[in-house]
Amino acid sequence: MRIITAEEYIAEWNNSTSAEENDAALDDAVLGIIRKVREKQDKALYEYTKQFDGVTLDDLVVSEKEFREAKQFTTPEFLTALKQAAKNIRAYHNEQKEKSWLVEQDNGIMLGQKITPIDRVGVYVPGGKAGYPSTVLMTVIPAQLAGVKEIVITTPPGKDGKVNPYVLLAAELLGIKKIYKIGGAQAIAALAYGTETVKKVDKIVGPGNAYVARAKKWVYGTVGIDMIAGPSEICIIADEKANPRYVAADLLSQAEHDESARAICITTSEQLADSIQEEIVLQTSRLERKEIIDASIEANGRIIIVDSLESAAQVANIIAAEHLELMVEHPTELLPQIKHAGAIFLGSYSPEPLGDYFAGPNHTLPTSGTARFASGLGVYDFLKKSTIISYPRQALEDVSDQIITLANVEGLSAHANAIQIRKDDQDA
Amino acid sequence: MRIITAEEYIAEWNNSTSAEENDAALDDAVLGIIRKVREKQDKALYEYTKQFDGVTLDDLVVSEKEFREAKQFTTPEFLTALKQAAKNIRAYHNEQKEKSWLVEQDNGIMLGQKITPIDRVGVYVPGGKAGYPSTVLMTVIPAQLAGVKEIVITTPPGKDGKVNPYVLLAAELLGIKKIYKIGGAQAIAALAYGTETVKKVDKIVGPGNAYVARAKKWVYGTVGIDMIAGPSEICIIADEKANPRYVAADLLSQAEHDESARAICITTSEQLADSIQEEIVLQTSRLERKEIIDASIEANGRIIIVDSLESAAQVANIIAAEHLELMVEHPTELLPQIKHAGAIFLGSYSPEPLGDYFAGPNHTLPTSGTARFASGLGVYDFLKKSTIISYPRQALEDVSDQIITLANVEGLSAHANAIQIRKDDQDA
Repeated sequence: MRIITAEEYIAEWNNSTSAEENDAALDDAVLGIIRKVREKQDKALYEYTKQFDGVTLDDLVVSEKEFREAKQFTTPEFLTALKQAAKNIRAYHNEQKEKSWLVEQDNGIMLGQKITPIDRVGVYVPGGKAGYPSTVLMTVIPAQLAGVKEIVITTPPGKDGKVNPYVLLAAELLGIKKIYKIGGAQAIAALAYGTETVKKVDKIVGPGNAYVARAKKWVYGTVGIDMIAGPSEICIIADEKANPRYVAADLLSQAEHDESARAICITTSEQLADSIQEEIVLQTSRLERKEIIDASIEANGRIIIVDSLESAAQVANIIAAEHLELMVEHPTELLPQIKHAGAIFLGSYSPEPLGDYFAGPNHTLPTSGTARFASGLGVYDFLKKSTIISYPRQALEDVSDQIITLANVEGLSAHANAIQIRKDDQDA
Repeated sequence: MRIITAEEYIAEWNNSTSAEENDAALDDAVLGIIRKVREKQDKALYEYTKQFDGVTLDDLVVSEKEFREAKQFTTPEFLTALKQAAKNIRAYHNEQKEKSWLVEQDNGIMLGQKITPIDRVGVYVPGGKAGYPSTVLMTVIPAQLAGVKEIVITTPPGKDGKVNPYVLLAAELLGIKKIYKIGGAQAIAALAYGTETVKKVDKIVGPGNAYVARAKKWVYGTVGIDMIAGPSEICIIADEKANPRYVAADLLSQAEHDESARAICITTSEQLADSIQEEIVLQTSRLERKEIIDASIEANGRIIIVDSLESAAQVANIIAAEHLELMVEHPTELLPQIKHAGAIFLGSYSPEPLGDYFAGPNHTLPTSGTARFASGLGVYDFLKKSTIISYPRQALEDVSDQIITLANVEGLSAHANAIQIRKDDQDA
């Protein structure tokens, strides 16, 4: 794992262009899929599933039988852990609920904000090799707390035509019955525009590969989306007191996601940096996903040496990491200096996997520096606001001339007319 | 203005495809502009400004001199109205502020949500023929309340190379000094990627034409955006007690925006429908923007007859209008039935222009049915959330096995390792 200075890293960072918005080949492929799904609907979904997932389905929807069969994979340990995680996620997100409000003034004017849930939400759960029951909990629970009535899940089937049993178990735990065996851009297109089998939704959430992310970008505007997820990353600020074994382990937990995952440590201690390097090699040799980890660490793994924790925080704010661990002696003292991060983990015993699976806060977080302007998934993603304006007759009369003045400045005489016509009735 | 049934309208609605996401020509043009701005930077901005705005600029930034010159357009009436509008907007949006929170449990676990403002925001203000000082207030004030440090405005110059003086006056009132004379997709590209003159921002907000909307969609992900604005619309639910002159005037205030604007009335009274038709003709004849209004009403103006206010609310929820007026005897009784709308105006004396300019709630609202999943612009658009997780040693130890179980189910052994390595230290 390379050790570099903050200046070197920032230079590297500024040169790393978010190339994807210019990936014409990806756009052509994704747009082609979206158009074909809109045109041929279910037929296109069956064709793409055969082409991309290598299986010919006879039904796009998971059957009752498949839900029952999934039960054989259950273990008491898994169910207990899953239920406790769901309980923690529900408790945390419950704090995010928003209330409508209405303020009345003496002159009878009422202004307010009405909060309503989205009607229909589609959740994309990645599949293929692995299955992610944690993604089901992290996406469905906030939607349910928001009051979303219809929640459906779509996830790619394996070559056997089945979807991951743990995903089914998590969905069943939350009472989600409608699960489509569709993956990739075709799943996003189906949710956005609808087909004979798939009912159009209002918003699509959940992580996915480059095709899914790109398709979400294309349908954004027709439906809502949570975010465009890129490669996952972790940034760990560590002082000389940090345990290099823990730092290395947490960096590796991020690196195993995929080759493009980014694992970065910012430290004030060169000695710690050396120890982390050794631990990375040692621990990696024992891990199953060694190849992915080696590739990820080689390409994107960095240890940045800084002269102070203040400098560390400044670099962390530039990176605006999806996951930021403060493995320092007094993390709460450093916290105020952190401006941009998806999730912040305090101390040596708050490793990223604790947040990925269990603690309660969402693990669907802004990646690739988008924490500069975006938040992780939350109840607020499934709620929307309608403003409320109520003026009594006299209150409008009192301000008519001011509104007419502003409308005329903008050259919108019909706007002025809507006020004037009421004013005339008053004056008459 | 055509009078139709709810069934007819819903059929019409379902057939109206949001064609734009397939407008390949628009995409090619916008992508071409974005790429050229990224490559040639300021040079491209000068070239496009000459090409699209018909003026050769010697500076992309509004000068102090131009700010001073704008003052000659001030009238006491305009300044008074502008200041009162700003005061109302500030008062309303102040209610939207969000606070960080941190909850501590008995076992020492701390979970929380840290709220931080976005660092740099770029506001697009449409220009050309008209100028929109109201847009300056509606976009800048929420950003300022959120605590955004750097706010810049970009707006296209007129053929004389100057930007609208009222836009400058509004900007000056709010203390915004940095205004770029750049419009269209090139302005969005400059804000998203930066040039020699334009500093890259983190989020871009504000309405614009099809090029601006499309460019915002393309840069979304690289920067944040507020929404992709489409044609503006109003929907008015009116009962037999409603004043047809007011209904017509409010419909026309929307229709004058542009030919694609949509003005819809849903009423339980056929007699009222007839009177509205007459008023539309009568009032339009007196209005300056008659041509635009006639085209808009002909193409998109509809009066929908329904059998009850319940049905009216159902149709309104399908339309999910940007602006929804409840011109009924008891609007607050109908309000609970409204699920999807950008802004809701109650009663006969809360016309849309009151909200567009003055009352306080934002006028940057979700258009074209996107109120199904989106909210109008608010302070929350300029704030982001970072989750906080802090576990003490024993608290992690207590749940280690559950986290390891979940990580192993997902086949992520490095995630399990990050927990196990800490557990081993405990057990040792």
